[in-house]
Amino acid sequence: MTEHTDATVNNPRPAESGDVDWGRRRIVVEAVTPQVDGGRFPVKRVVGDSIVVEADVFVDSHDAISAFVLHRRKGEEQWRESPMELIINDHWSGSFRIFEMGEYEYTVRAFVNTFRSWRRDLTKRAEVGQKGPEMEAEMKAGSLMMEEAASNASGEEKDFLLMQARRLVDENLYLTERIGYALDDRLPELVDRHGSRSLATTFPGILPLTVDRERARFSAWYEFFPRSAGKGTQHGTFKDAEKFLDYVASMGFDVVYLPPIHPIGFDHRKGPNNATESGPDDVGSCWAIGSSEGGHKSVHPKLGTIEDFDRLVARARELHMEIALDIAFQCAPDHPYVKEHPDWFRHRPDGTIRYAENPPKKYQDIYPFDFETDAWRPLYNELKSVLQFWIDRGVKIFRIDNPHTKPFAFWEWVIGELKQKHPDLIFLAEAFTKPRAMERLAKAGFTQSYTYFTWRNTKWELQEYMRYLTNPPVSDIFRPNFWPNTPDILPEYLQTGGRAASAARLVLAGTLSSSYGIYGPAFELVDVAPRKIGTEEYLNSEKYEIKDWDIDAPHSLRDLMTALNRIRRENTALHGNAELRFHETECEEIVAYSHHTANQIVLTVVNLDAHHKRSGFVHLPLQELGMDPRRQYQVHDLITDKRFLWHGERNYVELDPAQDNAHIFRVRRHIRSEVDFDYFL
Amino acid sequence: MTEHTDATVNNPRPAESGDVDWGRRRIVVEAVTPQVDGGRFPVKRVVGDSIVVEADVFVDSHDAISAFVLHRRKGEEQWRESPMELIINDHWSGSFRIFEMGEYEYTVRAFVNTFRSWRRDLTKRAEVGQKGPEMEAEMKAGSLMMEEAASNASGEEKDFLLMQARRLVDENLYLTERIGYALDDRLPELVDRHGSRSLATTFPGILPLTVDRERARFSAWYEFFPRSAGKGTQHGTFKDAEKFLDYVASMGFDVVYLPPIHPIGFDHRKGPNNATESGPDDVGSCWAIGSSEGGHKSVHPKLGTIEDFDRLVARARELHMEIALDIAFQCAPDHPYVKEHPDWFRHRPDGTIRYAENPPKKYQDIYPFDFETDAWRPLYNELKSVLQFWIDRGVKIFRIDNPHTKPFAFWEWVIGELKQKHPDLIFLAEAFTKPRAMERLAKAGFTQSYTYFTWRNTKWELQEYMRYLTNPPVSDIFRPNFWPNTPDILPEYLQTGGRAASAARLVLAGTLSSSYGIYGPAFELVDVAPRKIGTEEYLNSEKYEIKDWDIDAPHSLRDLMTALNRIRRENTALHGNAELRFHETECEEIVAYSHHTANQIVLTVVNLDAHHKRSGFVHLPLQELGMDPRRQYQVHDLITDKRFLWHGERNYVELDPAQDNAHIFRVRRHIRSEVDFDYFL
Repeated sequence: MTEHTDATVNNPRPAESGDVDWGRRRIVVEAVTPQVDGGRFPVKRVVGDSIVVEADVFVDSHDAISAFVLHRRKGEEQWRESPMELIINDHWSGSFRIFEMGEYEYTVRAFVNTFRSWRRDLTKRAEVGQKGPEMEAEMKAGSLMMEEAASNASGEEKDFLLMQARRLVDENLYLTERIGYALDDRLPELVDRHGSRSLATTFPGILPLTVDRERARFSAWYEFFPRSAGKGTQHGTFKDAEKFLDYVASMGFDVVYLPPIHPIGFDHRKGPNNATESGPDDVGSCWAIGSSEGGHKSVHPKLGTIEDFDRLVARARELHMEIALDIAFQCAPDHPYVKEHPDWFRHRPDGTIRYAENPPKKYQDIYPFDFETDAWRPLYNELKSVLQFWIDRGVKIFRIDNPHTKPFAFWEWVIGELKQKHPDLIFLAEAFTKPRAMERLAKAGFTQSYTYFTWRNTKWELQEYMRYLTNPPVSDIFRPNFWPNTPDILPEYLQTGGRAASAARLVLAGTLSSSYGIYGPAFELVDVAPRKIGTEEYLNSEKYEIKDWDIDAPHSLRDLMTALNRIRRENTALHGNAELRFHETECEEIVAYSHHTANQIVLTVVNLDAHHKRSGFVHLPLQELGMDPRRQYQVHDLITDKRFLWHGERNYVELDPAQDNAHIFRVRRHIRSEVDFDYFL
Repeated sequence: MTEHTDATVNNPRPAESGDVDWGRRRIVVEAVTPQVDGGRFPVKRVVGDSIVVEADVFVDSHDAISAFVLHRRKGEEQWRESPMELIINDHWSGSFRIFEMGEYEYTVRAFVNTFRSWRRDLTKRAEVGQKGPEMEAEMKAGSLMMEEAASNASGEEKDFLLMQARRLVDENLYLTERIGYALDDRLPELVDRHGSRSLATTFPGILPLTVDRERARFSAWYEFFPRSAGKGTQHGTFKDAEKFLDYVASMGFDVVYLPPIHPIGFDHRKGPNNATESGPDDVGSCWAIGSSEGGHKSVHPKLGTIEDFDRLVARARELHMEIALDIAFQCAPDHPYVKEHPDWFRHRPDGTIRYAENPPKKYQDIYPFDFETDAWRPLYNELKSVLQFWIDRGVKIFRIDNPHTKPFAFWEWVIGELKQKHPDLIFLAEAFTKPRAMERLAKAGFTQSYTYFTWRNTKWELQEYMRYLTNPPVSDIFRPNFWPNTPDILPEYLQTGGRAASAARLVLAGTLSSSYGIYGPAFELVDVAPRKIGTEEYLNSEKYEIKDWDIDAPHSLRDLMTALNRIRRENTALHGNAELRFHETECEEIVAYSHHTANQIVLTVVNLDAHHKRSGFVHLPLQELGMDPRRQYQVHDLITDKRFLWHGERNYVELDPAQDNAHIFRVRRHIRSEVDFDYFL
């Protein structure tokens, strides 16, 4: 039996650590947070974030302690220090900020601060008027510590330390005077910096941190099929898609995500509505990748040339958007890989290649890769080169298809390798699977993840799910991207709720999560007919055929989408770092929650009932939100631009599916006196 | 600046692990519990315990998995395997039992079980009647796996595997028949054992486990000063103490703990009531250790000889008790160490040795060791040799004085070293300090710990504190020992509550914690006069003078103590592994809680009001306790031997401080029919 090399014990005992001073190192540093699986995986933050690090730090007896957060760019030798402060019960907190993308490391170091202990004790001695030889010896002890610090200092600091050191033992001065010099406010910080820190203890673990660009946390995605961007049901091209970008940009999205753009297999090609047989004119599913026309590094000939694609990428950039590609690591039976690298696929004993199966279901148009193949290294490298190919064409955002059917170790490796050179890459994990697997993909390096939001409809479900997402350890690694629909998933709530349901889900997605996305134009055009009752498949799904969308249809949710994206951009409380609280509404169908930062409160109220008018009372904990509970305040609906004056903690709301089924309020404090006209900010 | 060697990253990424197969290893094993600080410290259990290990185990896609808990004695090569079972959501559980004291290790290993995946899929294929070349290839695939397993098996198992393997591809048999052979119930377990487990994943961490003897968790301690065991106020001897043991044994204690028995310093010796001056007849504090008469390896000449001590140890053993010694690592100014090893103490710049201080308080009779001394290695070794000296005289239990004023690394080292040779050692940490330091001492190896119980008096305080103690991570490392009093601490509740308060605290200590202790005879004789109102010091404390106790005084709590110890011994639910639940009582002063095991329920009800009769209704969640809520049941007071018939979830209790202020009920299910006389077990 070939077994994995045995696991090793983490963190050896001090006596076995090789540290020659282990017995004298009295400080304990433990329970450093944030920390993911003992430092096995990085914590995720974005550029500009303040990274708060906490730890338990203590020492035997009652000496004074100084503690620091250390951080550095990965690969650097030198640590940067940020001081920590004692909060309560040996728990310390400190922070640092990062302004550049990349991989970082942090840990905590602390030392017994003999000088501060000495000053603290000196104060107490002075209070009771201690004097005599023991007190003189204390003055000498302090003087020596200051001299030692002076020997590491220079310039004015050195001179100052030496002068004070001399004064402490100057026989011509009164003791009280000398104590006065010892208690000079400038000393502790100076001695901290230059004095001895021998016997410092560093937390036995260097914790990794990934700092992404802001779009990793705050993004609005629009997915569309370029092949439907043509006239009528004519096969659309990249050039058609270029024009369509204007429409997407006009609504304020910033990521445009395209399903796979590669040649589609002919072998076992699917027909409309997932039929196993297809006719000669059927376009097939773009997830059945590869044919004689090329594979993962080619574009579908009917979409145009690679240069056309380049122009699409450039046009998106002009519109302040980015193109995200869909990467599905699987092959149609006629993909060139199948002939060139048969050893990358699983075989039956008779030599035939296994298609995808979930017995008794067969997916004969798809050959999955065999990641357990002996040839896994060439396979891994080839798949990496696929991503590199598109990176080289300017694509920085990838939506990865079904990552949970490929090894977690593969993703950790490939994302890690690519982000080293391209820290601005963003990977969205399309994993709709069990929670531990979804979390592991996030730990392995995925920047964002699809979520269960798609099926969380009731108030209780939303509240519980948000509690799960917004607290560590999940919030340190898993960045949700909320999708009300995808080409694969037309949820029952949308099927049955009409336009009001889609509107409600849109507002929920865009306010509960700082990243959200929709599959359009199906979404805004409220195309909610299922292929069959009880399934989540679209009728005449765009996955298998070209659609002719009327984006100017009057019932389109286009205006609401435009408003939502504008509101999100203009209100930083929705950018992902705010505190989220749910509020009592006295109505099971009305959900209300606020995003609260130091200087902004955004309150969202949504009627989950897509069929009936509902009313309730929103309870706002005014004091906790930093409001004066005795004063009136204004809630300003950023969708309709209507303003309401509210008072006290309990205020009436009424939402009608026939009209506006949601409010996004900016809550404004009353800050002016009656002599001003402009009451609110 | 001398800095500690930099911390290292725990758990390298797979690609950096040196594992040549990292890319093919698809299983993830994470979140293994129990786990203390990522495996830095051992989990604590006692002999006979079943150690339940849980983990998240999953794989990409949907292959079948087999997972095992591995364990071994520390130092052994070979792992023992215990199968795990899937509980829910990729969470697995397994267990193993340990029957010998010592240090162990455990981890979790899992592999993709290709054979079980194949059988699961075969069942589904068979259900829809798949056949033809692909099905034949499947049969062949299964046959090959069975052949591979056969090649590792022998005897009947080998033959059986080979026979089945042949049958699967036997052209003379119908397919359904061959499928029948493939689904034989004996196969999975056989192939699990002999089949390929290449590409197994082991959790990247070996977790340590300490298995102690049962007394580590379940013990009743009695502390007394041997020097008070003589006639009147004559200095008692070990011989007097031998006689006193009969009294202690008669009450059912199992650990007899003696304050330090070493020579006491003459220099700055304390007088009665902690006076800084002492007269020539004053005996001093036995914690001021060492004089010209000897140090930590000597006995006080007035107590007798070391041979007398040996006899005391032997006599305790005859009475099924053990002597526990108090080890206080500090010196009187005239301790031999001070002259022999001045470098083990801290000095002022003028060369004088620093006595213990907490400015402005001075403890001139005590010189603490300087654990930061350059000579720390000889110091560490000498202190270890002190413990070894007493171990060699048959002492296996040590109460360590103020361990939180010595380095945590020292304790981890010294306890680790000694327990390697003497796994039956028990160390009780007398640390009354902040929670993180108390927890760290427990992690460092202390077997039991003093607690805040001494000051937890109200129902809410007790409930909250028990919640803290009985849940991981604390419950995995910290074994509480509840003391209602100590020679240093006479809590206000005892000072003000008279006999009823002492009785209540005794019952609480002995039932809330499987280890408890009292400082007697002060405790049972209800000696509760403080030296001064507002302090917790005893008036005329035994710490500084010899006491003449009248152990036969009628108000003694001796009988209650005897009953409590008997009840504890006879009811395994009080031995430390039971589930503890607090119950509503409809009275703030009445606390009720049950200890529940598979076959025992012990219900304790205590009146916390030491002055007034109180009554209430105890709510028992009968169904959760495994009782039939429709039937009567009996509660049998094990203190008074009274029996009550209760019915339903809510039953009346009344407790009077003037009489019995507590019940310890055995709850007995009604298990016989009306034809029997003996209704209850």
